[in-house]
Order: sequence, then C-alpha cells, then structure tokens
Amino acid sequence: MRAAVLRAGEIVVRDDVPEPVPAAGEVLVQVRACGVCGSDLHFARHGASMVALGEEMEGAGAIGTGAGVDLGRDVFMGHEFSAEVLEAGPGTAAPAPGTIVTSIPTLLTPTGIREIVYSNDVACGYGERMVLSVPLLVTVPDGLDPGHAALTEPMAVGIHAVNRGGIEPGEGALVLGCGPVGLAVVAALRARGIDTIVASDYSPARRQLALAMGAHEAVDPAREPAFDAWRGTAGEEQVVVFEVVGVPGVIDSIFRAAPRGARIVVVGVCMERDTVTPLFASAKELSLRYVFGYDLNEFAASLDAIAQGTIDVAPLITGRVDLDGVPGAFDALSHPDRHGKILVTP
Amino acid sequence: MRAAVLRAGEIVVRDDVPEPVPAAGEVLVQVRACGVCGSDLHFARHGASMVALGEEMEGAGAIGTGAGVDLGRDVFMGHEFSAEVLEAGPGTAAPAPGTIVTSIPTLLTPTGIREIVYSNDVACGYGERMVLSVPLLVTVPDGLDPGHAALTEPMAVGIHAVNRGGIEPGEGALVLGCGPVGLAVVAALRARGIDTIVASDYSPARRQLALAMGAHEAVDPAREPAFDAWRGTAGEEQVVVFEVVGVPGVIDSIFRAAPRGARIVVVGVCMERDTVTPLFASAKELSLRYVFGYDLNEFAASLDAIAQGTIDVAPLITGRVDLDGVPGAFDALSHPDRHGKILVTP
Repeated sequence: MRAAVLRAGEIVVRDDVPEPVPAAGEVLVQVRACGVCGSDLHFARHGASMVALGEEMEGAGAIGTGAGVDLGRDVFMGHEFSAEVLEAGPGTAAPAPGTIVTSIPTLLTPTGIREIVYSNDVACGYGERMVLSVPLLVTVPDGLDPGHAALTEPMAVGIHAVNRGGIEPGEGALVLGCGPVGLAVVAALRARGIDTIVASDYSPARRQLALAMGAHEAVDPAREPAFDAWRGTAGEEQVVVFEVVGVPGVIDSIFRAAPRGARIVVVGVCMERDTVTPLFASAKELSLRYVFGYDLNEFAASLDAIAQGTIDVAPLITGRVDLDGVPGAFDALSHPDRHGKILVTP
Repeated sequence: MRAAVLRAGEIVVRDDVPEPVPAAGEVLVQVRACGVCGSDLHFARHGASMVALGEEMEGAGAIGTGAGVDLGRDVFMGHEFSAEVLEAGPGTAAPAPGTIVTSIPTLLTPTGIREIVYSNDVACGYGERMVLSVPLLVTVPDGLDPGHAALTEPMAVGIHAVNRGGIEPGEGALVLGCGPVGLAVVAALRARGIDTIVASDYSPARRQLALAMGAHEAVDPAREPAFDAWRGTAGEEQVVVFEVVGVPGVIDSIFRAAPRGARIVVVGVCMERDTVTPLFASAKELSLRYVFGYDLNEFAASLDAIAQGTIDVAPLITGRVDLDGVPGAFDALSHPDRHGKILVTP
C-alpha cells in the first residue's frame, strides 16, 4: 500500500509498504483523514533528540513518545485520524465494514502497548490503511465529516487542558499561543462556557483563527503585552493562563508579568531546558499545572463536542492534501502564519 | 537603646539607637525573644542583590521584601519576635502594660505599610524595644514561654505551606530540606494529622530535629534518594512534595525523580535563576504551587497551635543568646548542621 514516511529527515511517499494485517482484537481500517500535528514537524527535524528524550522520559517512569524508534529505518507517522472499518481480525467482534471510527493513537498488543505516533513497524495515519484495537474504537456519528472527526485527537488535548486546569465559572482565560493546540484550548474553553477568553499570538492569521474558534479577543503581543490586554478586558477577574507556546523563556516571562495568585496551565511541551526566575513565582504565589495528552473519556467527549457542534473545527482546517501532498504540507506548516490544520486524505 | 544592626555586611551591636516612640495606633513594646531567620543570614551576605530583587518584585506587583533599604546605612533586622507591652501611643487603646504579644512583622502607618523585616528606620526584633501596630497584635496566652511565642512567625510559614499545598487525608508528604522552614512544614503536617511524613536532609542533626518535630522517617539523601525512601515507606500512596531547599537544581531533580501526577509545593525561596527540564514535568503531569508567607488567620492559628501543644517548638530551639551574642549567632548558623533555631533575648 502507499504511505508517507519519514526517511533520513525527509518525508517520502512509498508505494511498497506491506499491507497491515489485523490480529485478534484488531480491525483493519482505511484511513479517511489524518491531521498533520506540529509534533510531527518537530520529529522530522529533531528526531534524534526526541527519541533520546522519549527514552529518558520512559526511564523516569513517564510517557516516552518516540522511545525505541530507529531513525535509520523508515518511520510511520500520523496520529490524528479517522478511518473506515474494512475487516476484523480473526475471531474478533468489530463494528461493521463501512463504519467510520476513530481511536486514541494506541495499539493494545499481547506484548504491550504500542503508540500509533512514531513507529518503524506500526502503520500510522499518513498511509492508506492501518490496524486499530477494537476496544479503543470510537464510532463517528453518521453524517459527520471524517475530516472533522480526525480532529478528535487534537481537540481532546484542549479539553484535557481545560479539565485539568480546573478553571471555574467566574474565572477567565488568557491563552498564550494560537497554534493548533492553543486553538483547541480556546475551543474547549468556549465549549465550557468561559466568559472571558483572551488569546495572544504574533500571527494575524492565527489571531483570526482564535476568534473563529471562540476567543472573545485576540491580541498581538508585539503591540500590547498579553497581560496588559488581559487587564484591559477582564479587569480584576481571576486569570487562568494557558501556556501553549512551549519554547524556552515563556514561563519566565509569565512569572514576571502574571498577577499575584495566577494559575498557569502548561500545555505547550518545551523540548529544551528552560531557565526561570523562581522568586517571581514565590513572591506572587503562582502555581503551574503541567498537562499532557488526554484520557479515553476526554477523547470520546471531544468527538461528541465536534459532532454536536459545541466545538466547530471547520475554521481550523485550512488545507487538505492527498498522500503525495504530505511532503508539501510539512513544508507549508513550517510557516506558522499560513495554516491552522492541514488534513491528509489518503 | 541597644540593638544589633547590619553595618557593611557585619552584625554590630549599638548602644545609641534612638528610643522608638509609638505613634497613634501603635504600642511600644520590650522585645522578649526574637528568632534568627535564615533569610537574615542571607541578607547579611547578599544584601545588595536582595534589595535589587525586592525592588524588582515590587515593580512586578509582588511582595518586595528589602525594597528601598539603603545598605550604606545601618539596617535593623529581626522579624520573629514576642514582646511585652510597655506603653500605648497617644489616644490609643492597647493591651495593658505587661501583656505578652506578638505580631506579623508589618507596621501600618499613615503613609502605608512598612515591613519589620529589614529597615533603616523601623526598629526590629534584634533590639531592646520596638513599636507595633495595635490592630495586628496577637496576645500570647498566659504561661507560654515568650521564646516559644517568638516562633509563631516561622511556624505560620509551615502552616501556610500545608494549607496552600491542599494536602488531603490519605495523601502523604515528602519534605525535602529540614532547615527551620522545613521543620515548620513537618510540624504543620503532623498537626494536620498526615499519616506519612518522610523528611530528607543531608545533616544528621537536622534529621534528628525532623523526627522530633513529627516526621515519621528522616532519610539521608546521600545514602538513599529521597523518592526511593518515600516509595519504600509509603508504597503507592499519593505524594505531596514540599520543596524547602530553595537552591538552583532542586526543582529539576524533583521533575526527574517524582512519580507521575505528583504535586510539588515550593516553599523554599530560590534567590537565583534556575534551570529545569520541563519535558519531565509535562510527561508526568506534575504540578507546582509556589507558596510564600502566611495570612493573619494562619499567624493566629500558629500561636494557638504552639500554645495548645499541637506544635511543640521546644526541640527546635537549640540556642539562646543576648544582644551581644547576635554576631556569634549569625556565625554559628552559617554551619547548618549545628542548630535549629537560635533565639535572641535582648
């Protein structure tokens, strides 16, 4: 079958990938859509350090995405997918062929859990077909665009961040960074009914997307510091800050600018070491909650919100490509100003 | 009157300090005891950087202890005190002369709040007499050693850390660092009825003090990593980590060693920049809560706990000196292994 794979730092489209074969408990599916995630771009560029970090995380008892991947071999990628059921594995009760499903990007195997994120062996979403574990399948409601259903995964990240952030009615949110994850946070906040959502990003296109996804105000930090804009809009309302940039220096700038008692939900995953001035955090009694991923309930809630229209992902989708367009999509997404989410429809 | 002051980085005892005069709303008191705080040692050594940091904090809307202090002039210090009422200011209703009181180290003046911590003008606890604001006085119960009452302030820091840390029944505590503040945290945890309190410090004397203040186990991290000791003692019990070291590198080591989902209460105030590897915190969904100081209710609760014996401060007091002994006390406390708390009894 055909699939786009990472080979020596480049995305190449292969015609000779062996057909995946569903084992017991699995189902073979035809990929209908797969979103391109920023972490895939990062992995394509910095794979060696991400594999090393993944292994270090795993050694420390944490989730170690990328651990064990051999960059000397082709790497399958694509973890934001929807797909159509083709055929169940031996002796396996599965949704009927033709059913549109999605799943968290995890495969349950007799030898343990394997991620459908970066893998030398497990086919992922940037390909024609893949296998999924039946117990993890979530059925996409009839009539929902499979492209929208593919965004269940990134929207679940936003829902999880808002859930774990513990934002309460009467509190407002300042979202720093309006990449796809930041936009997912904005959408989840709006779905939660938060009254004041101020989003901040240097990119005009992303600010437009933030407004489309539910932000009440989108500010350009080059023109006005985000916390000043927050105070201008929200006054004395208690702020919950969502950090969705994930690069060194952002937390320190928040420590300096945040009001006393602010809660900071760290959604952005910073892959490098970072330096802060902790005295600001102490003197202001700030708190930080690092969040990561989502759970099965949040994943299902995300699909439900998309299906119900509580979260409208349509504005987020700024491009659709076929498998041959994957290399170009990776190039296009390296210019953050141009795109929200590009869907691969194999 | 006599007072020990900081002059050009040295503690000197003066005989010629002008007598404090209580204004309206104030009371003149005779200091009965004043604890030497580690932050005073730090200020004596690194005053210039602490003043600069205090001013930077104040500029950022936070508490800026030390802001405005002129190190070219003598600096009064001493903020953990108990005292005997001598005389009320003009037209002021105050506790009767002879009453033993304590107060948060703050003076309410017509021109604003002034700290009784580091000051060129406001007499503090390392002196014979000082003035206090009547609305902030807390009366020490009859029969309580004024030396014990002087520890209301540092014990309130521990109570505040435990309150803000939000530790729940069924959770256990790992206290990293057993200086006076760490010991206050241990005492507050024990008073709260926490079942598993593991304390960690390199110093054998401090480990002994931790056990005396209520820790169930005190570990030497040079022999066994603190989190290993925690797991050996508490098994799968949810851990709340109290960071009471406050030097660069500690948070990063916690990020690496903490179990998934751990909550970290940052009590130690790190005065330098600090570098962390945020990916560990993300992948494990850690949270950090920076805590600082205490409120008026916690201050009163601290005195109450000391008076009731819920918190027994006796083991903590390892030395008592008069004003002439203050320079020597500062020297002695620079060797952290030898002392818990030294009281100055002018």
